[in-house]
Amino acid sequence: MPTITNGRILFNSVPGDLPEPGKTTIYDESQALDLDTVPLNGGFLVKLLEISVDPYMKGRMHATSYEDIIPPFIIGKPLFSFGIGVVLRSENLQIRAGDHLHGMLEHAKYSVQKDPAAFDIIHNPLNLPWSNFLSVLGRPGKVEWLNPLSTNSHLKSGKTAFMAWREFAKAKKGEIVFVSTGAGSVGSLVIQFAKMDGLKVVASAGSDEKVQYMKGLGADVAFNYKTTKTADILRNEGPIDIYWDNVGGATLDAALEAANVNARFIECGMTTEYTDGGNIPVKKLLQIIIKSITLHGFFVDRLCPKWNEVFMNIVPSLVASEKLGFKEETFQGLEVVGHALLDLLKGKNVGKVVVHVAED
Amino acid sequence: MPTITNGRILFNSVPGDLPEPGKTTIYDESQALDLDTVPLNGGFLVKLLEISVDPYMKGRMHATSYEDIIPPFIIGKPLFSFGIGVVLRSENLQIRAGDHLHGMLEHAKYSVQKDPAAFDIIHNPLNLPWSNFLSVLGRPGKVEWLNPLSTNSHLKSGKTAFMAWREFAKAKKGEIVFVSTGAGSVGSLVIQFAKMDGLKVVASAGSDEKVQYMKGLGADVAFNYKTTKTADILRNEGPIDIYWDNVGGATLDAALEAANVNARFIECGMTTEYTDGGNIPVKKLLQIIIKSITLHGFFVDRLCPKWNEVFMNIVPSLVASEKLGFKEETFQGLEVVGHALLDLLKGKNVGKVVVHVAED
Repeated sequence: MPTITNGRILFNSVPGDLPEPGKTTIYDESQALDLDTVPLNGGFLVKLLEISVDPYMKGRMHATSYEDIIPPFIIGKPLFSFGIGVVLRSENLQIRAGDHLHGMLEHAKYSVQKDPAAFDIIHNPLNLPWSNFLSVLGRPGKVEWLNPLSTNSHLKSGKTAFMAWREFAKAKKGEIVFVSTGAGSVGSLVIQFAKMDGLKVVASAGSDEKVQYMKGLGADVAFNYKTTKTADILRNEGPIDIYWDNVGGATLDAALEAANVNARFIECGMTTEYTDGGNIPVKKLLQIIIKSITLHGFFVDRLCPKWNEVFMNIVPSLVASEKLGFKEETFQGLEVVGHALLDLLKGKNVGKVVVHVAED
Repeated sequence: MPTITNGRILFNSVPGDLPEPGKTTIYDESQALDLDTVPLNGGFLVKLLEISVDPYMKGRMHATSYEDIIPPFIIGKPLFSFGIGVVLRSENLQIRAGDHLHGMLEHAKYSVQKDPAAFDIIHNPLNLPWSNFLSVLGRPGKVEWLNPLSTNSHLKSGKTAFMAWREFAKAKKGEIVFVSTGAGSVGSLVIQFAKMDGLKVVASAGSDEKVQYMKGLGADVAFNYKTTKTADILRNEGPIDIYWDNVGGATLDAALEAANVNARFIECGMTTEYTDGGNIPVKKLLQIIIKSITLHGFFVDRLCPKWNEVFMNIVPSLVASEKLGFKEETFQGLEVVGHALLDLLKGKNVGKVVVHVAED
């Protein structure tokens, strides 16, 4: 095979409020590569197929951000994020040519990787689009990669919704669940899993368009929390037996007030912690004693060993048969990563953002 | 039997800051009773043996307090609280003469009761002092009797400590537990149950005398939270695997900060809610996601159906063999109830306050 041009997205300069494609990140074609002869040194050569673009990537562009948890992007080097790649050649016994991998990958059409433990090999018997493995079938990666502050980022996925629902909801038919951020990548799946279990679903989001989307997913009561008081809705539609919390703060207080005896609270995220500066007070915790409520905090990776097989037996089939609604927003070509990230940070996306880099 | 004088403690006037024995409550001997002929009308005649005196009784002296949860005391009528009595005569098939009952009883040497469901029949094969059934072996009574705001009152008992520890602690030998209010009637037992399970126990209380008491119960680290910063102690002695919370607020925040991954928080009480006006902010709840913490709120009555038999098989034996330390402060004679309550509210008690009314 002749030498090819290895397109890469390089981090070029620290952005201000928003990244600027072509300035803070640039698409670079200066690297030449012979795929047949590039030295692997015991590693494996990966061709990038799909790459995930997530809000937390902005944080990595600031050298002081998250520095003790996850490394920042380095000027002159490629960005990296979760992606799907196919192995072209391997000198590692655990990884074979043809394997499809999920893991943290450089934003480069081709890269040589060293550590098999950093990747999962994906099995895809139903021939689902590979991008699905970054969205509805995605996993958030190893815990050590995650910054605590990114718990509500789009790293969360279908596994988050499925596994925590199975582990903590203890759902009984006829019970009432409240889902905040119900139009998000996790909440939208929770609505659907709850309906499959026969629950009444009350769901909130921040726009009328999202309210319509949640109703389309089956929510019995969907409302715009910016124009309707959460506490009023819950007073009329509750008491709630389960609360899927993506926001914390005042919404959590409203849910505590509206909780039934023995309610289960699934603490998936607290966006108010990130948007409102952290240490947001919650004032109604006495309710957890009065009503024998249990609050479950979790990271989905800690649930994976127990639930991964069940997930893989159930959810890909639901996706293949179109029984599970979810949204992906696909951008075409590695060169548009900077634009995809900018749109995302401007709030223009309506689903999981994935950049399609190459065909399998 | 000749007619006897039925001594009673009557509620006489609404107190100011503190009740005044002889004024707000009076000991009354105006009622005459023939124990052999007093009409039972299908009920049962109870001789009072022991009566519990608790802080929440002050609240009942104010007509507007707790009015929708629990009835206030009525001027001219006897006080009532949890007590132990023996049945002298019965016209109810579920209750027999000689039965010992635990339940809400009037402060009268003798009373006719109507409702068997309001009482538990106590079995006492080890011949423990009856007062023990109001303290270390006591139960807090039916949930419907309890005001949520009294969750930390002295209605809590050995059953609270034992059952919630069994249900929620999932204690493993070598783990670290932090117990706040460790010198209290519940916390002091939690310290001992935790040591029996092989844990390292860190415990806090509000005086050096109480610190010594906790050390005597086996606490590995005991400290006075008024002179030592809880966060500093936990940073050195933690991370903590279990937190037994009696106080909420800033102490709960400190425990969240010092928690280990997969920590269990047993939410027994939140005294700061009562002493600091309610709606006390807790600001570190994001920790429950970061560390996969579970918070368990509970009322012990909801645990009784599952754990009562285990409790009765284990704890009375521990008491009889003096393997479980606890404190009772006994006052002699129904006529001193007002004084006992006053002492209690002044903070003079060092254990569960019980008034001994009569021999069996």
